[in-house]
Amino acid sequence: MTPRPTALSVSFIGIGNVAFHLIAVCLEKGIPIDTVRGRNATQLQGLAEHFKNALDISESKDLSSLNSDLIFIAVPDHAISNVLETYIFPERSVVVHTSGSTPLTIFDRIRKPFGVFYPLQTFNKTRPVSFSQIPIFIEGDSKETESVLSTLASRLSENVRSMDSYQRAVLHLAAIFANNFTNHLMQIAQEILEEEGLDFGDLEALLAETFFKASAISPTQAQTGPAVRNDLSTIKNHLTLLKNPKHRELYQLISQSISNKKH
Amino acid sequence: MTPRPTALSVSFIGIGNVAFHLIAVCLEKGIPIDTVRGRNATQLQGLAEHFKNALDISESKDLSSLNSDLIFIAVPDHAISNVLETYIFPERSVVVHTSGSTPLTIFDRIRKPFGVFYPLQTFNKTRPVSFSQIPIFIEGDSKETESVLSTLASRLSENVRSMDSYQRAVLHLAAIFANNFTNHLMQIAQEILEEEGLDFGDLEALLAETFFKASAISPTQAQTGPAVRNDLSTIKNHLTLLKNPKHRELYQLISQSISNKKH
Repeated sequence: MTPRPTALSVSFIGIGNVAFHLIAVCLEKGIPIDTVRGRNATQLQGLAEHFKNALDISESKDLSSLNSDLIFIAVPDHAISNVLETYIFPERSVVVHTSGSTPLTIFDRIRKPFGVFYPLQTFNKTRPVSFSQIPIFIEGDSKETESVLSTLASRLSENVRSMDSYQRAVLHLAAIFANNFTNHLMQIAQEILEEEGLDFGDLEALLAETFFKASAISPTQAQTGPAVRNDLSTIKNHLTLLKNPKHRELYQLISQSISNKKH
Repeated sequence: MTPRPTALSVSFIGIGNVAFHLIAVCLEKGIPIDTVRGRNATQLQGLAEHFKNALDISESKDLSSLNSDLIFIAVPDHAISNVLETYIFPERSVVVHTSGSTPLTIFDRIRKPFGVFYPLQTFNKTRPVSFSQIPIFIEGDSKETESVLSTLASRLSENVRSMDSYQRAVLHLAAIFANNFTNHLMQIAQEILEEEGLDFGDLEALLAETFFKASAISPTQAQTGPAVRNDLSTIKNHLTLLKNPKHRELYQLISQSISNKKH
């Protein structure tokens, strides 16, 4: 197989948030998309209309007649195996998944060439993203595969790196703390405010500074508050104010953890 | 006492992060600063030099000869009482603290007029802030006092509101979740990465989007990840990857909390 760096073409299986944004950026960069496959005809149709019918769409699981350089399996983690078992792929195409936490070995004994193409971002169809700033982590079954992945990824992002499955899993785990868990704490903040008729919007400047500060001076330098000062009187007042016992439990465990790191 | 809305003058007790940024914005807005008082001569001198010696500084606790409209007590929460007991204030000045979690009643039986001037932000001397976007919550012992506070606050910020001590304490508690606790989770993310020789900087685009998304579409809408999907296999893998038992405990409690809110 010879990579075609000047005119790589791609196909997609899956129409979720990751597929949506990868399709958008491929169209934007003029990367040919041969086809988009999915299980739900209505959703496929909606996707095609969103992209002004610039896409070939189909429910067929037979991709054997395609000539794509790369086929993205952009489906929920638990569905990747099923896609690998039920779809028919063209022999020469590199088949990749886009999952942070799924190892490369999921392709073993199923097909070659294969790889991973993991863009580290939280995607949502309602929000445009600047793909050039998103780090893309690639892994392939061979140097040749990695060269194809790297060529495509470099057209989408300024930050492309090879990474093995173990390190990618660690990166994904860190991203859970940095995104999913921080988001949940913002949700609790919102609940606490709304129970008192107060407005989550008042935290906007604080939230912006929280994330910029952590990036700029490191979270360790940025840590403030009663837990890091060991201000037991304020902590006690907060525990009294918290009505939800689950929130009290979280408050105590996180405060302990902050205090332990400091002392 | 008649407020002087066109030429309010202020003084400061305290030279920490909040005082630093309030001094900076007062100088920027041309609000006269009569004096800055603190306990540590070297630090006072450093502050004066930072602001190009535009400040009168002193360690004296006697402020009785001043004619300031407003005197800020911008010291750690636990030190406010001590300042109130040991400093001598001019009779006409409104004395305020800048603490979210300290009630107005701390001034009771000590002096009048008094109030609270709480700018909701995380301050750090190394980072400039855009004060006009920071909400300022005021509370006073009288309408006259609130009018002085409101006049000054409105010169610094576009978002000024009266709020009682209970609601301010709730707001401060929500801010602990939104800032202190989210920051701690970013610190854990950094630790997890650095143990594997990976780079926290790779999370920068994710962190920026995490905050923007929560503000734009609400944290409830923005929640993604294995816990909200009830993806037990990924959760199990993550718990295996986590070496620090404290981090495992946090991972489990926060994942449960995300899952409980969803189901």
